[in-house]
Amino acid sequence: MYAAGMRMAALSRMTGIPTATIKWYLREGLLPRGDTTKPNQAEYGERHVRRLRLVRALTEVGGLPVAEVRAVTAALDDPSVDLGDVLKIAHGALSHGSVMPGADAAAAVDAFVARRGWTVKDGSPARDQLAGVVGMLGDLMGSPDGTGTAVALLEPYADAVEGLAAMEIGTLPVDEGRDAVVERVVVGTVLLERALGALRRLAQEHAFEQAVRAGRIPGR
Amino acid sequence: MYAAGMRMAALSRMTGIPTATIKWYLREGLLPRGDTTKPNQAEYGERHVRRLRLVRALTEVGGLPVAEVRAVTAALDDPSVDLGDVLKIAHGALSHGSVMPGADAAAAVDAFVARRGWTVKDGSPARDQLAGVVGMLGDLMGSPDGTGTAVALLEPYADAVEGLAAMEIGTLPVDEGRDAVVERVVVGTVLLERALGALRRLAQEHAFEQAVRAGRIPGR
Repeated sequence: MYAAGMRMAALSRMTGIPTATIKWYLREGLLPRGDTTKPNQAEYGERHVRRLRLVRALTEVGGLPVAEVRAVTAALDDPSVDLGDVLKIAHGALSHGSVMPGADAAAAVDAFVARRGWTVKDGSPARDQLAGVVGMLGDLMGSPDGTGTAVALLEPYADAVEGLAAMEIGTLPVDEGRDAVVERVVVGTVLLERALGALRRLAQEHAFEQAVRAGRIPGR
Repeated sequence: MYAAGMRMAALSRMTGIPTATIKWYLREGLLPRGDTTKPNQAEYGERHVRRLRLVRALTEVGGLPVAEVRAVTAALDDPSVDLGDVLKIAHGALSHGSVMPGADAAAAVDAFVARRGWTVKDGSPARDQLAGVVGMLGDLMGSPDGTGTAVALLEPYADAVEGLAAMEIGTLPVDEGRDAVVERVVVGTVLLERALGALRRLAQEHAFEQAVRAGRIPGR
């Protein structure tokens, strides 16, 4: 599809990413340097094309801050980082900016996770994020046991994602080697979380229109 | 629970939000001004407590940029904004920073939405965001019909959210008046999207641990 050694202009044409952006990714350490063939001249190959697409996907579609993208690409590039840690780093990137949960909310989420029989390690960024959401929902509900009421809301959401997660982990391409698996973990975790959110909103739009047409909700 | 008229210090104690943050919310137009009782003295009431909790939930847990929070609170405060538009504004806030999708990806998502029988209006921010994700997934797959392969991945995710969305819209408290409904729409859309993502990641952690224990995935 393309020559093994490309100059930056060709890399830009192939990926549709402006050279200024590529240079910025290089400076930020998100893209490995090319092979220096002559002084002041570097060549790029297939791994640079893949990495550029991945970085763009994580920043533009995933909405991850640069520091989180760097943590993810560093894990991809370091074969000593095991798969479980790649998953944790990708999860941490998506939990970026989580608030510190209160003790009540953290305990309620721990009890919820235990009731579901989920094995979740200490320091799970997703658990802390969920506890933050539960705490806020509890505050907004303002009932005497707001946190308990908020946790009870989670049940159908947990039911919905349990099968998805089992499928996602069950279909990891473990026979294709580390690179394929870790890229799938990162892309699947980040991009499909955005897809899941967007699909839920589309389904809400549809359900809303149906309810308006049926006269259950005032349209205007 | 609290006096009708509170000074800012009392509002801060009640919500746990520092007065510097409250002043910043006031300057940014996220919190309505209090009632001026004397020169240089304003009093705050229950609606300020609720609004503060909501703004904090949207910024800290929802991760929304200030401009998006302002769009949401402006819609809440304007009774002429109908419920469908509140939903669209909340959806737009969550789609913030979406990339412009390519024509291929947009057409593939439109066909997907039509196949599912979903009624989705033109200008739906969730549809554009989904098309952006599909386009990026297609690029990363690199197969001749990457976009088609990417759209095919969405089916189980759409199945999972369809029932959730119907429940969410079906349980809106339409008898409790506009304020209750629009707040539920905003909180439910934004906070439960974060909860859904965090729950999926927790379920992934569990599925991953199970697969390692069963020897299907190399642990280290």
